Amino acid sequence: MTSPISTDLGSDLPVEEFRALAHEVADWAADYLGGVGSLPVLPGVRPGDVRSALPATPPLQGESLTEVLSDFRDVIVPGLTHWNHPSFFGYFAMTGSGPGILAEMLTAALNVNAMVWRSSPSGTELEELIADWLRQLLGLPPSFDGVINDTASSSSLHALAAAREEAYPNVRNEGMFQQNPGRIYASEEAHSSIEKATLTLGFGRSGYQRIKTDGRLSMCPAALRSAIQEDVALGLKPVAVVTTLGTTSTAALDPVREVADVAQEFGLWLHVDAAYGGPAAIVPELRELFDGWEMADSIVVNPHKWLFTPVDCSLLYCRRPEVLIRAFSIVPEYLKTPETGAGRNLMDYGVPLGRRFRALKLWFVLRYFGRQGIVDRLRSHVALAQELAAWIDAAPAWERVAPAPLSLVAFRFVSKRLDGAALDDANHRIMERVNESGEAFLTHTVVRGRTCLRVSIGNLKTTHAHVRHTWKLLQEAATYEGGSIHP
Amino acid sequence: MTSPISTDLGSDLPVEEFRALAHEVADWAADYLGGVGSLPVLPGVRPGDVRSALPATPPLQGESLTEVLSDFRDVIVPGLTHWNHPSFFGYFAMTGSGPGILAEMLTAALNVNAMVWRSSPSGTELEELIADWLRQLLGLPPSFDGVINDTASSSSLHALAAAREEAYPNVRNEGMFQQNPGRIYASEEAHSSIEKATLTLGFGRSGYQRIKTDGRLSMCPAALRSAIQEDVALGLKPVAVVTTLGTTSTAALDPVREVADVAQEFGLWLHVDAAYGGPAAIVPELRELFDGWEMADSIVVNPHKWLFTPVDCSLLYCRRPEVLIRAFSIVPEYLKTPETGAGRNLMDYGVPLGRRFRALKLWFVLRYFGRQGIVDRLRSHVALAQELAAWIDAAPAWERVAPAPLSLVAFRFVSKRLDGAALDDANHRIMERVNESGEAFLTHTVVRGRTCLRVSIGNLKTTHAHVRHTWKLLQEAATYEGGSIHP
Repeated sequence: MTSPISTDLGSDLPVEEFRALAHEVADWAADYLGGVGSLPVLPGVRPGDVRSALPATPPLQGESLTEVLSDFRDVIVPGLTHWNHPSFFGYFAMTGSGPGILAEMLTAALNVNAMVWRSSPSGTELEELIADWLRQLLGLPPSFDGVINDTASSSSLHALAAAREEAYPNVRNEGMFQQNPGRIYASEEAHSSIEKATLTLGFGRSGYQRIKTDGRLSMCPAALRSAIQEDVALGLKPVAVVTTLGTTSTAALDPVREVADVAQEFGLWLHVDAAYGGPAAIVPELRELFDGWEMADSIVVNPHKWLFTPVDCSLLYCRRPEVLIRAFSIVPEYLKTPETGAGRNLMDYGVPLGRRFRALKLWFVLRYFGRQGIVDRLRSHVALAQELAAWIDAAPAWERVAPAPLSLVAFRFVSKRLDGAALDDANHRIMERVNESGEAFLTHTVVRGRTCLRVSIGNLKTTHAHVRHTWKLLQEAATYEGGSIHP
Repeated sequence: MTSPISTDLGSDLPVEEFRALAHEVADWAADYLGGVGSLPVLPGVRPGDVRSALPATPPLQGESLTEVLSDFRDVIVPGLTHWNHPSFFGYFAMTGSGPGILAEMLTAALNVNAMVWRSSPSGTELEELIADWLRQLLGLPPSFDGVINDTASSSSLHALAAAREEAYPNVRNEGMFQQNPGRIYASEEAHSSIEKATLTLGFGRSGYQRIKTDGRLSMCPAALRSAIQEDVALGLKPVAVVTTLGTTSTAALDPVREVADVAQEFGLWLHVDAAYGGPAAIVPELRELFDGWEMADSIVVNPHKWLFTPVDCSLLYCRRPEVLIRAFSIVPEYLKTPETGAGRNLMDYGVPLGRRFRALKLWFVLRYFGRQGIVDRLRSHVALAQELAAWIDAAPAWERVAPAPLSLVAFRFVSKRLDGAALDDANHRIMERVNESGEAFLTHTVVRGRTCLRVSIGNLKTTHAHVRHTWKLLQEAATYEGGSIHP
């Protein structure tokens, strides 16, 4: 059985070399996780610095991985913003965890693709199981069926595609061209991914209606009802309402039950964006904040935001998965399998055909921490946020701009000497001073036209001391704007 | 600095425990990669088996990761279809590699999110750099700007959203409702993700026109021109043409230059789906197959298909990235940064806001193998496919159903005694016998109404012996249908 053609050139990194390097990577990862708190959170690089430190063309001959790892340590890592740093308080403090990282390492080695049941039975069934575990933890009824997507942006896109499918029964065949113009409603505090989904689906900006919020930055159900009634009177077609449990700006919570009543009254799809806030429903004393979300048609919860799971992992729960499947299922011959009808084919639930084995990391996380361990940790993050909120409330030169029902505090520096744009600029400068220190990282938002700062807590390594030190940094930075240190 | 509230409960797996387990995982991964060739490719499980072997509810108290790893080995791994197996020839033989796996381990530990430059400078700039490296390897002009998505399904969705943006300048504001009905064209052999993208974007099935193919299963440019002219006469709006370089059924190649001429004549967006075939452009003697693709507006190439990169990693190249950005950029206040305008913000190029650090694995792969190492390996895969094609051509009871220009061979068992559905069934049974052996894994397709089998080569561990043995298994399986073993 000899061949004239050389066919065995195509070899991978030899296994024993892989083993040695994997041990090196294991040590690097442990050292990194143990020491990340002493690195600057925000690196001191400027746009272009990293790229210009690397060769502009790929090598002709292969290079040793020892060199690659050395460039990784010397060029890549110093140019990273460290999301693992315990004082990373920007955006949502997306946090991984040791168990999640270990599972991702296994996922990378397995490299399976659960597009259909046959292509990855364990991948498919562990995803079903873990989605159901999380559903139980969240207290949602068994009618909610979950699938994992990469991000909340994708989950919400899929949910609103299902809403569109439900509202326009012939959209799959006829498209949007001849349809009665439709409207999707969300509060003015809803995440940009909702608007992006409506644009992608062809509703356009004029098909996206922002509903005003009350003093707590929560959607006004009465304003929602009026907007729908107005649109109906204009001959437009209300399609879906998106309600948020934990907005990105301030963690505001929409009154889901009241919004659900309005959605039901008009027969609209109700999508709940609980990407960040959702995990809080696992904590008994916070469960009441979610009252009514079981009336939703779809809910997104991101374990990669506040449930110790490395990015990416977003759960989309759907009470009528058959509508989601109607919107997305296309089964060409080369993807038909003998199990069609028996095993679930995850490709039927959204845009991407290929899919990583994301269920594994969530399984590791939920088993390692257990329900009680999760409750303890989420509770402690909320307590840290409450503590910071109390310090801010007690400091004359600072004010909170919204309630802090979860683990995110939104606030601003205030001064009698400054207002309007000058005060906004002062807050920006304070944030930049803190960020340039490398000791903490914050991001800003705008609430009711005013620039505010945010401290978002969620990292497993964050302690009281990190929050306290960040509060000190903020006050020090504010002295340049006329602030003083509050004891 | 004491606090009345216990805030330090929220700790992660201790670093030294993580280190020990990461070393265990490193050894497991090395053993797995070294031994996967002796595991059954397709597991002997039935739908429900894996799920029913695991507890239906999450644990109340945390469990030890030793137990979790043991369940992983005993329950999860035996229920997996092994994409790493050197005789996995189904779908596209998605292959990882040691360097890619090591990089994924680092990505998991870092857990950064490159949505904006500031949130991950190295993540953003390494993605720019590596997209440009691959562009150079592919021989595309510098005008092509690349970004990484999860899958080709997402890349093509984004590309066609840009096409829609270009065709309907007011779609971002007005949506699709009042637009002149539009059409997207692709060959009847195009991948299902193209149809899925057109449905998602609101074109509907009636907005998706399949163009017939010639004897080589390549799109007929004349048929494309007629279809466009007919639609124009009907008052419909031609929007985009999708041409494929390496179809999923048979690796057929559309005549890109001729299709590009037609697209240019009518002013249509040209998207090239080279998700599988693209990497072959790195091989000098195969470059001519890609003649004309530099005329495209967008091109998708998946390093996770045939470029040794673990799933997921799909490159979307766009010659007019400003159109893509116009379709997708939404910058809420909380995502504005001081660098806006200087550093690139990757969130502006598609649906997902969050994004894993996928560039790292492609950087490891391109550096470790180098241009020459990649060429050698791709060339050897094509040679293996040619060899199998020659064996099939020489065997009286078998026939190829299409040319095999790359690393995929499509063929079928034939018999004088059988035709039509009976012959299709015989081919299905042959495939199932091979798959049930656990020694190789194939999937099927339908070409011109006839069931065919596919052998897709791409795994770095696949050698001449694996292909030869699979050919033997096929012939043995065919003896039950009246076939004989060809020497």
